[in-house]
Amino acid sequence: MSTIDSLFRPRSVAIVGASADPAKTSGKPLAYLRKHGYAGAIYPVNPKVSHIDGVPCFPDIASLPQPPDVAIVMLSADRAIEAVRELAAKGTAAAIVLASGYAELGEDGARRQQALKQAAGSMRLLGPNTIGLVNLTDGIPLSASGALEAGLLPAGNIALVSQSGGILGSLLSRAAAQGIGFSKLVSTSNEADLGLADIIDALVDDAATHVIALYMETLRDPVRFRRVAARARAAGKPIVAFKIGRSESGARSAVSHTGAMSGADRMYEALFSDAGIWRVYDFADLLNVPAALAVGRKLRGKRVAILTSTGGAGTLVADSLGLAGFETPVPDAATSERLRSIQHTQSALDRNPIDVTLAGLDPQVLRSAISALMDSDTYDGIVAVVGSSALAQPDLMADAIGACLHLSAKPVIAYVSPHAPHITARLNQRGIPAFNAPEACAAAFLAMHALPGGPASGGSEAQMEGAREAVNTPNGGPSLLPAGLAQASGTLDEASSKLLFARFGIPSTRETVVHDEVQAQAAAVQFGGSIALKILSADITHKRDVGGVALGLDAQSVGPALASMRRQVLESTGHAPRAFLVQEMITDADELLLGLARDSLGSAILLGAGGTHTELLSDTQLRMQPLDRALRFDEAMDMLRSLKTWSLLTGYRGQPPRDVQAMARCIQSFSEMVLALGDRLREAEINPMFVRGAGKGVVAGDGVVVID
Amino acid sequence: MSTIDSLFRPRSVAIVGASADPAKTSGKPLAYLRKHGYAGAIYPVNPKVSHIDGVPCFPDIASLPQPPDVAIVMLSADRAIEAVRELAAKGTAAAIVLASGYAELGEDGARRQQALKQAAGSMRLLGPNTIGLVNLTDGIPLSASGALEAGLLPAGNIALVSQSGGILGSLLSRAAAQGIGFSKLVSTSNEADLGLADIIDALVDDAATHVIALYMETLRDPVRFRRVAARARAAGKPIVAFKIGRSESGARSAVSHTGAMSGADRMYEALFSDAGIWRVYDFADLLNVPAALAVGRKLRGKRVAILTSTGGAGTLVADSLGLAGFETPVPDAATSERLRSIQHTQSALDRNPIDVTLAGLDPQVLRSAISALMDSDTYDGIVAVVGSSALAQPDLMADAIGACLHLSAKPVIAYVSPHAPHITARLNQRGIPAFNAPEACAAAFLAMHALPGGPASGGSEAQMEGAREAVNTPNGGPSLLPAGLAQASGTLDEASSKLLFARFGIPSTRETVVHDEVQAQAAAVQFGGSIALKILSADITHKRDVGGVALGLDAQSVGPALASMRRQVLESTGHAPRAFLVQEMITDADELLLGLARDSLGSAILLGAGGTHTELLSDTQLRMQPLDRALRFDEAMDMLRSLKTWSLLTGYRGQPPRDVQAMARCIQSFSEMVLALGDRLREAEINPMFVRGAGKGVVAGDGVVVID
Repeated sequence: MSTIDSLFRPRSVAIVGASADPAKTSGKPLAYLRKHGYAGAIYPVNPKVSHIDGVPCFPDIASLPQPPDVAIVMLSADRAIEAVRELAAKGTAAAIVLASGYAELGEDGARRQQALKQAAGSMRLLGPNTIGLVNLTDGIPLSASGALEAGLLPAGNIALVSQSGGILGSLLSRAAAQGIGFSKLVSTSNEADLGLADIIDALVDDAATHVIALYMETLRDPVRFRRVAARARAAGKPIVAFKIGRSESGARSAVSHTGAMSGADRMYEALFSDAGIWRVYDFADLLNVPAALAVGRKLRGKRVAILTSTGGAGTLVADSLGLAGFETPVPDAATSERLRSIQHTQSALDRNPIDVTLAGLDPQVLRSAISALMDSDTYDGIVAVVGSSALAQPDLMADAIGACLHLSAKPVIAYVSPHAPHITARLNQRGIPAFNAPEACAAAFLAMHALPGGPASGGSEAQMEGAREAVNTPNGGPSLLPAGLAQASGTLDEASSKLLFARFGIPSTRETVVHDEVQAQAAAVQFGGSIALKILSADITHKRDVGGVALGLDAQSVGPALASMRRQVLESTGHAPRAFLVQEMITDADELLLGLARDSLGSAILLGAGGTHTELLSDTQLRMQPLDRALRFDEAMDMLRSLKTWSLLTGYRGQPPRDVQAMARCIQSFSEMVLALGDRLREAEINPMFVRGAGKGVVAGDGVVVID
Repeated sequence: MSTIDSLFRPRSVAIVGASADPAKTSGKPLAYLRKHGYAGAIYPVNPKVSHIDGVPCFPDIASLPQPPDVAIVMLSADRAIEAVRELAAKGTAAAIVLASGYAELGEDGARRQQALKQAAGSMRLLGPNTIGLVNLTDGIPLSASGALEAGLLPAGNIALVSQSGGILGSLLSRAAAQGIGFSKLVSTSNEADLGLADIIDALVDDAATHVIALYMETLRDPVRFRRVAARARAAGKPIVAFKIGRSESGARSAVSHTGAMSGADRMYEALFSDAGIWRVYDFADLLNVPAALAVGRKLRGKRVAILTSTGGAGTLVADSLGLAGFETPVPDAATSERLRSIQHTQSALDRNPIDVTLAGLDPQVLRSAISALMDSDTYDGIVAVVGSSALAQPDLMADAIGACLHLSAKPVIAYVSPHAPHITARLNQRGIPAFNAPEACAAAFLAMHALPGGPASGGSEAQMEGAREAVNTPNGGPSLLPAGLAQASGTLDEASSKLLFARFGIPSTRETVVHDEVQAQAAAVQFGGSIALKILSADITHKRDVGGVALGLDAQSVGPALASMRRQVLESTGHAPRAFLVQEMITDADELLLGLARDSLGSAILLGAGGTHTELLSDTQLRMQPLDRALRFDEAMDMLRSLKTWSLLTGYRGQPPRDVQAMARCIQSFSEMVLALGDRLREAEINPMFVRGAGKGVVAGDGVVVID
């Protein structure tokens, strides 16, 4: 039994600092365990009383009859540290520390949390500042949350993991009101030890959990998280995440432009996309979407039937679905005929929404209509609208849909138009996802369309095992620089940066380093054609700003231009440049930007439209660098295709088509460089990356690299 | 007393087809009137019974003792027509027809509706297919809606007008659950006669109504609606609209490109913007935002304090506000000091969200903290978070905020984190807008920031009177074409289109109509420089597609180019072109697109980035043509400034700055043309519109006009 299994299903629970007063927070865990009929051993630790509710108390941790599987520590922040030390010494598997007063308070608190972690040694910790853990599958509450006061919460197949205890409580009460049940509830909060990845890893193996809902504030172990998410995906268990922090300013200070275009939230977006995690953007959808996925029905196409007895609400749902890209085709002739045979009214049954009017209050009519739609090949899914007229028959819709679910594997969801929480709850409890926001119907169907239809349908045992092994593989591969740059560090100048790119197969413009007018002229003669002149400096990255770039020169003008540039740069910076680059000009190409974005989440490749388009179009794609390999050709092509400027690259409006295949290979090469250099590569950017005509390849026009 | 006043406050109500059975739909209106203590005369019409609930019945309409102010017609669609005819003959002021079976059913129904309208003559009609009208200010229900079953609904200062009866019922029950009250509820539904504009016009004069909420499916009288909206604005009564139809395909078939870039929903967007109507995009916000505006407190800046006792929810709200552009600055030193003096805890009170932790359960602490924030100049508004810990004290937050509202005019709203509808309702009932979605807090504050702070604060009586007169002014001004084009109709060719533009002061490229090689060469010699050659045809609008455009010619090459073009166009179209345009080439300019967008809502001016940018950037602005004047210079500059390409036009990245003032004047001229030609101008588009360097003006490069 793993430690986290012990947390979910402990054979014994110690409660350190248990109060005999169930009205006090420190009295609640024992009261809840008793109330929900916990069958294991309970060891309250309290020197002042002999029994609580008939359970014998122990005066201290040392006196416990055996090491408990789990200890709930109810002491204050300072006293909890000593208790954790004693629990670890006793051989306890895991401790849950509920007290606040740690890292959430700033530096002093962070030191206290560090001391707590040290005191725990090899014992696992949940928290601190957590509201604990509730195993609803087996009815084991390890928490003092007032949310458990209300009696047994409904069990279901959704696990909810939250980095905020308060939000967990909020979601819990909202879910209960909507009839949505959970398998496990875990608040990881400060994550002194156990984090999101640890909990998800255990949930992948938890048969009672089919869908995992995450409330996320930050990610402390992104590599392990990505590997665990891959395991969940292989197991066919969707992860739905709501992540705050979207409002944070994305601009980070960096030598390259890439930093400014890859804010913290865009990195999370890339990470979720890479990990196959379904992100929701409305807080309510953190319950709505898991509730939809939990029924395990996949929406196999985008054609939806809307069955309603009230025109307005049907139209409202149709509009929300339409905005999300769904179609609402009219019934095929056979289905129309079948609908007409059910009722003989004035209603127009050859439209969609299909309005059965008040006849829909007849259970038989309703069931027949749903059956017809379940059988129709015109529809991939059904939304049934519950109108005000159904308020008096709260089971009407649930009964009718329930009777038809066996007819087809297509999903059926319900939209509840009036305020009728009891109807919403009954529908959810009976496995029919029900929502009171039209937007939620669309959000639910989007997820049911994109994600697998149920647990364990996605991957084989072998895949899961492979993924499991990967979870604990340490990150990092070879991180040596190519010979010649092995000792390099700091910002590389343009020529050195391009040398590095070349080692990975990325070609650059033809260029020569020169130091004076004579060398410059000679180089220009050698290249022929139009010439660019730039200062060569690792210190000055914004060369244009100091007058360090001149374009459109030739062998005649390059000498005087160099002299003038030397003067200007000296004026601007106080230092006369010693080296210059003479470079061929590329004019038959489109410009892109290719860069490395790095933050605490890891490395990602940023591809953007170049030149003025970069900022005007905000046209960038960000994709996580895979952990153990470079990007594949198809992945690189996907990035290119997702650019708004893709149409320009491929010959829009008479523009010459560009060598996008060569660009895709260049993205792969860049990704190989990122993989090979690992953590040593702090920044890397090619801008502009010239993409020439079809078959003519790509060349880096300028670039910068920062090595640690 | 106006007819609509009669509808809101009738002295007598006839109920045609009243049933003696209150369980039947046709029995409800009388039962509701009696239940809510209606003080006027009630005349049930039913030949089969003598009394209903003690009220004497009349056998038919002719027998009524006097013409009623309002008649509720409870008969089926066909029988209602005859009853309406008799009611009109009797001199009834207005009839409410509840039956369905009219235009919502298609063509047959539309004919039936037309007969109904004719039968009404000069009597006003609400409906058909309506659930009626409820005056909650005076407690007068004129409806059979089951939503009134629940007893007296809360009265408030929000009027709700809906084009769907079902949605009205749904919003009603949702509002009741949230403690949101209404002044008037009206379902206009099929709008055979009375439409949105009529009802809003009456609500502007209704002292009990401060905010108007609209559920809109379509707009049948856009001119009158715009004038009425202007009256509401002058009266300081905000209108909040939820409009479905966003998912409709925007592409319309038209000669110009403008049609494809100004879909139906974008026209609504432009109309709402022009009319000062606040559009909401989430269905729930159709209640949330009016509830926020109804308290009449304006958010005068974007700096918000978040007061919380639960960290997670505070952060969640802060993130939603940040996404919407609000700031959450930390408390100033004095406020921080004051917060610290209230409680002595570990909590960090120099942050925002300001987390008073569980100390916030003490009413005195909570009130002191809110007072400190009300007094602080650092904040323009406050969000108070109600956490799970407050569930046992449902009045805690409402009491504390209520006691502080007099300290400042700044708005205070509440976010209710757990499922606690009773707390939300109590807060709303006490004038504190309360929401259970973090996104709703942001939506509410956005509207409170943008809109006036309360009724009658916006305009003077004189302004309102002026606006009132305008409401009934018929649309349309002079609609004659300038001399020379007076007889024109259909599609004008490029030269004629440019002639029309010139009459309104819009200059075009220098050009000459030619018919052969010799004339072409002569024209080219005269212009000098680079020359464009195009076919001149009213029939062929996509000249490029048939080989009818050649660029970069000169006096030497224009002749052979003309011969070759004649052959190519003949091959493509089967007709040899007879006329061509020789035109100067403009190369020192940026390209824009300027067009007229017209649909059933009226006319709008479309301004877009030209060339490849139009489609790549989707960079267009759409603005309604004012009803009685042309666009002003500042309005035209606003349109230009809102383009993404604005930065390019004004000298971004070394581009030469363009003559944006001349372009703004050109937009004004275009708007003058739209105003002058009125309905005769079906399409008009200039593309490209060349905008030259500062001081050098603009020239139309190509254009097309369609005249009716």
